[in-house]
Amino acid sequence: MSRNLSAAEKAEVIEIAQELADVARVETLCHFRTDGGLDAENKEVARFDPVTVADRAAEAAMREILVRRRPQDGIYGEEFGIERGRSGLTWVLDPIDGTRGYMSGTPTWGVLIALAEEGEGAPKAPLLGVIDQPYIGERFIGGLGLAQSVGPMGERALKARATRALSQATLFSTFPEVGTAEEGAAFAQLSRQVRLTRYGTDCYAYALIAAGQIDLVVEAGLQPYDVQAPIAVIEAAGGIVTNWQGGPAWAGGQVLAAANAELHAAAMAVLNG
Amino acid sequence: MSRNLSAAEKAEVIEIAQELADVARVETLCHFRTDGGLDAENKEVARFDPVTVADRAAEAAMREILVRRRPQDGIYGEEFGIERGRSGLTWVLDPIDGTRGYMSGTPTWGVLIALAEEGEGAPKAPLLGVIDQPYIGERFIGGLGLAQSVGPMGERALKARATRALSQATLFSTFPEVGTAEEGAAFAQLSRQVRLTRYGTDCYAYALIAAGQIDLVVEAGLQPYDVQAPIAVIEAAGGIVTNWQGGPAWAGGQVLAAANAELHAAAMAVLNG
Repeated sequence: MSRNLSAAEKAEVIEIAQELADVARVETLCHFRTDGGLDAENKEVARFDPVTVADRAAEAAMREILVRRRPQDGIYGEEFGIERGRSGLTWVLDPIDGTRGYMSGTPTWGVLIALAEEGEGAPKAPLLGVIDQPYIGERFIGGLGLAQSVGPMGERALKARATRALSQATLFSTFPEVGTAEEGAAFAQLSRQVRLTRYGTDCYAYALIAAGQIDLVVEAGLQPYDVQAPIAVIEAAGGIVTNWQGGPAWAGGQVLAAANAELHAAAMAVLNG
Repeated sequence: MSRNLSAAEKAEVIEIAQELADVARVETLCHFRTDGGLDAENKEVARFDPVTVADRAAEAAMREILVRRRPQDGIYGEEFGIERGRSGLTWVLDPIDGTRGYMSGTPTWGVLIALAEEGEGAPKAPLLGVIDQPYIGERFIGGLGLAQSVGPMGERALKARATRALSQATLFSTFPEVGTAEEGAAFAQLSRQVRLTRYGTDCYAYALIAAGQIDLVVEAGLQPYDVQAPIAVIEAAGGIVTNWQGGPAWAGGQVLAAANAELHAAAMAVLNG
């Protein structure tokens, strides 16, 4: 089965994932905090999700590497869609997660890369995930035996923390308006029970769970490429990511990420209360 | 008058400001993203504003430099209070602006340093300001002829942008719950008229106005040390910072920071509408 990679193949895909993150870092940074370089269009005016030149250039550069080095694998990318493979594995790419943060110059958008089991529609369980923040120069990688970050303070092991009670937990979400009205009400209910709620961090919040800094991320309306890499990174750090019903979050939608199983259960009970 | 510093004294205070930021960077980073190093207490339980060991160590280190190099100046610090001077100038220090962000491991808290005219209670107009983000290794400095940032992509000139219409503007605030119920309602009214509202960035949002990346920051309930450095940095970049009535924001309270005068007027009209 595809999940049982040989040691050599594990090393190969880890190396390739790093290479993808490296090229995406260059492509995203060369348009970051510039004016002229950006050609923003609204993919969906109501949701205000701009596509940038950087987004497309970064995904194109990553695909070029994959076509050359892993032609047997599929590709599931935010910008250029789905390419079926024959290995049972697929690369899930979100060149800029948090385009609105990117357009605002914040340092909490990121490049998301995952290697997952290929599914019929959406990818299934991720084996490996990378969350990269190019401006800070910080990379979180989890899966296939790895759980580490490399950044301004060197290399660190990723380990989600042991916060047990909601009353002690820190909750993050990108916007206070989470999903539909009903989803938003459930989120607000949870927010009232935690110690601190913060917003505005895009994918960086998932990395902060893996790094043992925060406890919960709750979002809704996500795409597979938004959540695949975070799942792999958080699970490698001992955390747990599911949908709001406790099932796999591989396909996106409602996502509940928690530092540990006990806190996850407590948060899920409130979201479904 | 104190505002007319000689070229030599300007160079001296700029050098000292950089030195203060350097030591604060060391002290804040050595406790960042650790568990054991933090001794969090709630200064004010209802507002949840934890003080950390890092906060105090950083301010103590900065005060040590000032006592040695500028004994004639006053000090107005978040942690250790007010020390009157005899030069007419005072240093305004907030060793960690955004303690909740710091405690959550985010990269948008910062060290705030300003040199201001000494006032009776609060400091008056700032002459020089520094916003430093130690984890990213990024520093924004404005005043006394300077308007620049130094960070991961090198040295850049700071210049606020020319967005004229609220409908094109990006608005930031640290939390969606801004100030009192009345202040919150005014903020929500403004939020409905802008293109994008984002939260969670602490002092980094003010730096993003100066860097020409966003257009508006609106907050309430600020202290002088929260706003003195942002005022100097944004004004040096061509932006404008006042209270919600258009008067000086030197003492904190309600703060409206804008990329330019036209947008500032438009935002102020909505906040007072």
